[in-house]
Amino acid sequence: MKSNQIALTQTVQKGGCAAKVSAMELRKILKRISFPKPHAELLVDGRLFDDAGIYKVTNDIAMVQTLDFFTPILDSPRLFGEVAAANALSDVYAMGGRPKTAMGILAFPIATMNDSVIVDVMQGASDKVNEAEANFVGGHSIDDDTLKFGLSVTGFVHPEKIWKNSRAKVGDHLILTKALGTGTMTAALKRREASEEDIMEAIESMSMINNAIDYLSEEQMMAIHSATDITGFGLSGHAMQLANASEISLRIKVESVPRFSKTIHCLEKGYLTKAHRSNSEYTKEYIDTKSLDLLNQQLIHDPQTSGGLLLSVNPKMSGSIVASLKNKFRNVSIIGEVEKLQEKAIIFE
Amino acid sequence: MKSNQIALTQTVQKGGCAAKVSAMELRKILKRISFPKPHAELLVDGRLFDDAGIYKVTNDIAMVQTLDFFTPILDSPRLFGEVAAANALSDVYAMGGRPKTAMGILAFPIATMNDSVIVDVMQGASDKVNEAEANFVGGHSIDDDTLKFGLSVTGFVHPEKIWKNSRAKVGDHLILTKALGTGTMTAALKRREASEEDIMEAIESMSMINNAIDYLSEEQMMAIHSATDITGFGLSGHAMQLANASEISLRIKVESVPRFSKTIHCLEKGYLTKAHRSNSEYTKEYIDTKSLDLLNQQLIHDPQTSGGLLLSVNPKMSGSIVASLKNKFRNVSIIGEVEKLQEKAIIFE
Repeated sequence: MKSNQIALTQTVQKGGCAAKVSAMELRKILKRISFPKPHAELLVDGRLFDDAGIYKVTNDIAMVQTLDFFTPILDSPRLFGEVAAANALSDVYAMGGRPKTAMGILAFPIATMNDSVIVDVMQGASDKVNEAEANFVGGHSIDDDTLKFGLSVTGFVHPEKIWKNSRAKVGDHLILTKALGTGTMTAALKRREASEEDIMEAIESMSMINNAIDYLSEEQMMAIHSATDITGFGLSGHAMQLANASEISLRIKVESVPRFSKTIHCLEKGYLTKAHRSNSEYTKEYIDTKSLDLLNQQLIHDPQTSGGLLLSVNPKMSGSIVASLKNKFRNVSIIGEVEKLQEKAIIFE
Repeated sequence: MKSNQIALTQTVQKGGCAAKVSAMELRKILKRISFPKPHAELLVDGRLFDDAGIYKVTNDIAMVQTLDFFTPILDSPRLFGEVAAANALSDVYAMGGRPKTAMGILAFPIATMNDSVIVDVMQGASDKVNEAEANFVGGHSIDDDTLKFGLSVTGFVHPEKIWKNSRAKVGDHLILTKALGTGTMTAALKRREASEEDIMEAIESMSMINNAIDYLSEEQMMAIHSATDITGFGLSGHAMQLANASEISLRIKVESVPRFSKTIHCLEKGYLTKAHRSNSEYTKEYIDTKSLDLLNQQLIHDPQTSGGLLLSVNPKMSGSIVASLKNKFRNVSIIGEVEKLQEKAIIFE
């Protein structure tokens, strides 16, 4: 916090991806809606709201589209803008695409909030859009009780090179590109038990764009069979979705799962969000966590904002991919492997 | 209102496009942000937030992108969903494009609002997306104090057939496809001075998608030099933007401007919004309204939600275009013409 006095996290009930409507509640609602018949061009159906949609434009170009916005998860407007943008851009990268255009989604209390807060939020976002080599093409703003910000992002991907979450193969290694713990650490910030300085490792991680693609060779890219990004539903929820879509099981070694130096400390202190519980509910029938202690269970359910990519890759290339990504993503780790379908979608051990 | 007891307009401070942040306030803020350098592919820059952006994909295809969302302007969830969707889709039509994909933007108080409200809002929107022959490809929802809904829409247009707002030509006739008055009539609803039944002509108009393109021949399409849609900044604000961008002046006969049968009555009763004043402020240096009485001044500043298209067309084709559009848009009218640049951007008479 520099240019202003308001701690943004204190202006809202809950922040970041933890404010997302839970997966179970949402699905229940969406099932009751009759949607238009999908066009033949719709290659990946995002109608269930939790992933990017992909729409074929030509034989060589498909649009990857995603939209994400939330209330402040940080106190500093600029950092909040950076994180909100990195988080929204991530879904395009998670599909193997490159972001091209971004539109701003902005709600703020115009009568009571200083303009400089909005300028700083937007500037943080603009910097990340620029870093992603994308363009701002518009947006919409409304007067609202509390600040919310996010982006609608469109990227391009070759229709035959999409990282679908249904393509993980038995024998693949699982790579996670960022550490876990943004949920519990930002909960500590929100409760004033930690300052932004205290949780800077998490903030730096959240503000990193997931541009793994810029660090990999064509051969390494081809070795990535499937991918997703870890956000509000936690490692447990997003890995489960990938396992179910691919009809395989994942074996994940929890001790290999990267976490920030203060993640476990924050969990020990009980800095939890509603999403810790709802992610546990969402996944409980599908994952085996019996060999995990309570803290590690909370870790895998920790809701991430702008979390890392989970990549399912050819095991022969996993070492090389980790080595290449290490240049930017210092916590990148191999966390497990893909096995044939078993009773549970994920076995944590 | 059928399936539920809550009158949605009573759950929010202000509804629809009247809740939009004013153009002047927004521009002041956006000018302070340093945006990424526009790509060469960015054909129409929407960075000032009030128009669609256009990004070239191939020599034959450009993406038209726009985003719009707001709080309830109507009491019935289904009608609100229809209007919010028609309003968001409109910016693509205003550029000469056809909508292809839509993503939902949803904020709602999950603890207190019945799921059926969300289902109805989404179903109304889905029906309009279907009518526009577009596809739902995803979206994002958050838990929030008040309901907000809208869409991020992407359409396609041929890069050489874009209806830019900078292409109006001296001698063109101006066509407005819908009547004015949604601002004052929904203000009456919000104040419980009118029921939805009372303002049904405005509701039916707002829920119509602006698919003029589906009623016009290739020759008629070619005769349209420039276009914009009339939304929150009113006829005055949006026509002014078109005039300034085209470096011409507009002469508009206010008696030819279509309005709903109850528009003037509602204005007489003083059912105004904040936007009536801010639109007047926004345009006062650029428009000549001295021959208008107070009610007609309020009429031209009336903020529209899902308003009509303002088309600047070859005068030889204006009659034929109006005749074709009349099949769907029964209030479509020629309201004025384009003159060479004068002291004021618009002369109302």
